[in-house]
Amino acid sequence: MRCTVVGAGAWGTALADLLARNGHEVRLWAYEPDVVESINGKHENVRFLGGHALSPSVAAVADIHRAVEGAELVTFATPSQLLRRIIKSAAPSLPRDVPLVVASKGIEKDTLCLMNEVVEQEVPGATVVAISGPSFAVEVVSGQPTAVVVASTQSEAAGIAQRAFSSPYFRSYTHTDVIGVELGGSLKNVMAVATGVAEGLGLGFNARAALVTRGLAEMTRLGTALGAEQSTFAGLAGLGDLVLTCTGSLSRNRAVGVELGKGRTLEDVLKDRETVAEGVATAQSARALAAREGVEMPIVDTVNRVLFEGQSARSAIGALMSRELRAEVDR
Amino acid sequence: MRCTVVGAGAWGTALADLLARNGHEVRLWAYEPDVVESINGKHENVRFLGGHALSPSVAAVADIHRAVEGAELVTFATPSQLLRRIIKSAAPSLPRDVPLVVASKGIEKDTLCLMNEVVEQEVPGATVVAISGPSFAVEVVSGQPTAVVVASTQSEAAGIAQRAFSSPYFRSYTHTDVIGVELGGSLKNVMAVATGVAEGLGLGFNARAALVTRGLAEMTRLGTALGAEQSTFAGLAGLGDLVLTCTGSLSRNRAVGVELGKGRTLEDVLKDRETVAEGVATAQSARALAAREGVEMPIVDTVNRVLFEGQSARSAIGALMSRELRAEVDR
Repeated sequence: MRCTVVGAGAWGTALADLLARNGHEVRLWAYEPDVVESINGKHENVRFLGGHALSPSVAAVADIHRAVEGAELVTFATPSQLLRRIIKSAAPSLPRDVPLVVASKGIEKDTLCLMNEVVEQEVPGATVVAISGPSFAVEVVSGQPTAVVVASTQSEAAGIAQRAFSSPYFRSYTHTDVIGVELGGSLKNVMAVATGVAEGLGLGFNARAALVTRGLAEMTRLGTALGAEQSTFAGLAGLGDLVLTCTGSLSRNRAVGVELGKGRTLEDVLKDRETVAEGVATAQSARALAAREGVEMPIVDTVNRVLFEGQSARSAIGALMSRELRAEVDR
Repeated sequence: MRCTVVGAGAWGTALADLLARNGHEVRLWAYEPDVVESINGKHENVRFLGGHALSPSVAAVADIHRAVEGAELVTFATPSQLLRRIIKSAAPSLPRDVPLVVASKGIEKDTLCLMNEVVEQEVPGATVVAISGPSFAVEVVSGQPTAVVVASTQSEAAGIAQRAFSSPYFRSYTHTDVIGVELGGSLKNVMAVATGVAEGLGLGFNARAALVTRGLAEMTRLGTALGAEQSTFAGLAGLGDLVLTCTGSLSRNRAVGVELGKGRTLEDVLKDRETVAEGVATAQSARALAAREGVEMPIVDTVNRVLFEGQSARSAIGALMSRELRAEVDR
């Protein structure tokens, strides 16, 4: 099958490599000329996934139109806040009636759209599949066992994506709850910032586990308010990805949180980074969505206060941890 | 309040210290004479929680009758397979009408009883409270923020335990689902062995997160079959404790799994250990319970095959990871 991946960050590159190893013909659109060059010249994405040999059949392409035209499966793995702009520019060349897979994870600022909504707005009638789950790119490109979900309201499209991505070490389970799958992948980045902050403050594993638990409860509350299914949050795209991002040593969002917990400012932390920490923008969007839906999200609020309102990490997390004693489940 | 803790392993010692710091009068029953001596002499449990100064007001007691008589709150923190024997010997001196708190985590072999059932059988009419949640003992004794649940069908007893244990750094949330809270704490140890095995085999964070997710689904299936509430498994005693035990560096059960994953035999791994890895016995009990209830628990089965049936870790985990592709949630 002719597959295109739009966006050559770590995750897009790993997915392109996976598709190529599965025998598909793969074009990978990269924004940065040096990334195109290093993938085509050295079969390595030196900038975003250095040290990992890619399948030589992954062809990096600088022109978005040439990248997408004639593709039978198009996967978007751009930073979430750029997806709309990129898809707008690709739209004239995007083939019709092929599944559009969304691998970007975030909530668009201002519009508060999930990524599938962005695609549907820009490509009317599109068949969207969301792919999400616990999947550090470096492990996928290394052939480490990984399990994800591919969600679509159209089961045929989900099946096409499932077959395209699945390999002996990459298991794809189909799902129907696109909203839940997307929200899980997006909101977990905010929770990862929170657990990072706690870690940076010197808090231990007990506190981290409590934060993860309370975090999933918040995510589930917002999700069900937006029409997602509760069970999705107990699955790979909810709990699974949350556990990965909050406890795996490789998470970018958690790393940002750790630095904030040590007392650095957001500006200072972000200036050192090549890559996007999706949790920063998503924190704002999640808070706005929660306000719109009337859902209580104390951890999301706390992260916003530390990120954008100058509250010290110590006082913010202290306030979160010492909320009034009560029953675990309100009845 | 006069409080007694029965069992001076790491967890019992940490709970005794917590109660003492909360101003209660605390007796701690220890089986080993050297533990009694080191707690009373040095205010340290050198054997099971070395390096941590205990409140000088914790009085270690060697005689079980002298330990429990006149107590207003008794907490059991023995190894789960020994609870029945110890409670039998304590029974004649156990005060009536005081909450009996169960901090032991496991399922009794042969009888397949949970710890609250063991207490209720041995002390007819007892008011049982289960305490569980993500709580490494060394962090509790160090004053690291921790959140747990205290569950009882009798809200007054849960409230007494909640007030006794709560401190600014130790949050106790009340709960009513004793079975769910106990099962969470017990079964998570089996899942920790599984994630340890995967880790010992060299699998990465993606696989671990998938195992944790699938593990919670198994735990929830068995729990609801036994009358527990599904939501309990999404809370601190389910997900929270599971995340802690499967990802925190300090977990004993995970450490046993890691050694098995590296190819050592169970016998060889256990002979080096001073402390009890509850997951080993609980794996067998959980499998028997699942069979009795007709519940599918592939991870529990896998752990049993590695622990007791000589299947190699690699082939067992390989089989688990490559189950047939399908939807995440069967409908």
